[in-house]
Amino acid sequence: MRNVKLVLAYDGTDFSGWQTQPGRRTVQETLEQAIRQLTGEDVRTMASGRTDAGVHALGQVVNFHTQSTLPAETVARALNATLPDDIVVHGASEVADSFNANFDVRRKLYRYVMHNGPVADVFLRRFSHRLRVRLDAATMHRAAQCLGGRHDFQSFETDWPNRSSSVRTITHISVDRGSAWPAQVSPCSGDSGDLLWLDVEADGFLYNMVRAIAGTLINVGRGFWPEERVRAILEVRDRRQAGPTAPAKGLFLVRVEY
Amino acid sequence: MRNVKLVLAYDGTDFSGWQTQPGRRTVQETLEQAIRQLTGEDVRTMASGRTDAGVHALGQVVNFHTQSTLPAETVARALNATLPDDIVVHGASEVADSFNANFDVRRKLYRYVMHNGPVADVFLRRFSHRLRVRLDAATMHRAAQCLGGRHDFQSFETDWPNRSSSVRTITHISVDRGSAWPAQVSPCSGDSGDLLWLDVEADGFLYNMVRAIAGTLINVGRGFWPEERVRAILEVRDRRQAGPTAPAKGLFLVRVEY
Repeated sequence: MRNVKLVLAYDGTDFSGWQTQPGRRTVQETLEQAIRQLTGEDVRTMASGRTDAGVHALGQVVNFHTQSTLPAETVARALNATLPDDIVVHGASEVADSFNANFDVRRKLYRYVMHNGPVADVFLRRFSHRLRVRLDAATMHRAAQCLGGRHDFQSFETDWPNRSSSVRTITHISVDRGSAWPAQVSPCSGDSGDLLWLDVEADGFLYNMVRAIAGTLINVGRGFWPEERVRAILEVRDRRQAGPTAPAKGLFLVRVEY
Repeated sequence: MRNVKLVLAYDGTDFSGWQTQPGRRTVQETLEQAIRQLTGEDVRTMASGRTDAGVHALGQVVNFHTQSTLPAETVARALNATLPDDIVVHGASEVADSFNANFDVRRKLYRYVMHNGPVADVFLRRFSHRLRVRLDAATMHRAAQCLGGRHDFQSFETDWPNRSSSVRTITHISVDRGSAWPAQVSPCSGDSGDLLWLDVEADGFLYNMVRAIAGTLINVGRGFWPEERVRAILEVRDRRQAGPTAPAKGLFLVRVEY
């Protein structure tokens, strides 16, 4: 048996998330079907984490065991030839038998993308959460810094209590503003930094954690809440005190480190 | 009667082009329906040009006459509230009664976007023509330069002869390569300039002209044809000598000058 690791990108818009569910179109089932077509095997794929319905991935990591002797590069090319055009394999490699894409995660980076201009962007509407009211990115960035480090993130977890601890370590958190399109690609006048993105890198994530942090920081950025409120929310360990869960379509799993 | 000018962006993927056709979803009909809902009038909109099925617009210009006394800015906001999310009004202004968005065009800029990386980009698949084989952008750019200036572009016109002349003046033509996404927005490793774009600015365009130029330059960029062949194709005035009409989804109407 060989153990194959894949790096996947997908447009989450038309998927009911990663995990196989009866009667739903999911990334896992679509991928496993493509692997079955290639190898004739019913494999079980393991992902770094289950992305929810509508969440996108730039670098989801998956592994599966197979009897196939095809070189990993051929597997990638063959899967791309059969996969629908909203999933793409960016790379494939053979890894040690013990590698498990879920258990072995050291760090993941998620990005939450907000479109914050006076007029919607038709080309980004599937890939960003649109907010009309001007957000103050610098204040959001400052407010977010208290979340860095090791904390109990119960206030940013949907459906707490979970089976285990809600303590995680955020190794990087930032909010930036920039143009949605490189100037030379889209000369759409008026786009002077309409895009905001929140990056959160951590050793693990609780359910809806990035979307709850995004919803909280949006309340700060629009001036509803003072920036100090974020620390108070963190400390109170009560999900009802944080902001709403921001929509899935703005969320991207960017990369996973092992 | 007032004459209102609109600047529109649309994602052409799910439209059968600009012009109203029975039983088809078109930009014109969708827009006229939104205007009817706002003003109660059956207006007739005039566009700078008819974009084909699947072609996108960043800055299509349209005008229509109305009895409505709503300020232009209100018209823009109200239309955006009712239009589907693949059309957006970027601006509205009141113009002289004589202004006609079609007849008064001085210059238009079209952009043809190609995704040219080893692996597809799931987020750009609706907005670019994907080519796996590596294209030489510098050679394409040089080859394109002979098309600049005033020429008979019969070789790049579908369905010639048309009712009038096929002489047009290209005021700018260029081919560039760059990254699909700004580095800070998408850290997708491996995207080191996977995007190519052909810009063509002219005083007018023949049917499928940019897509025929794109198809021709792609044959040069992949090494099928020497770069000198473009001049020979221009001079022979025979559509069969030029390259194929490149797919609609890579084409954007960027801006219109009056």
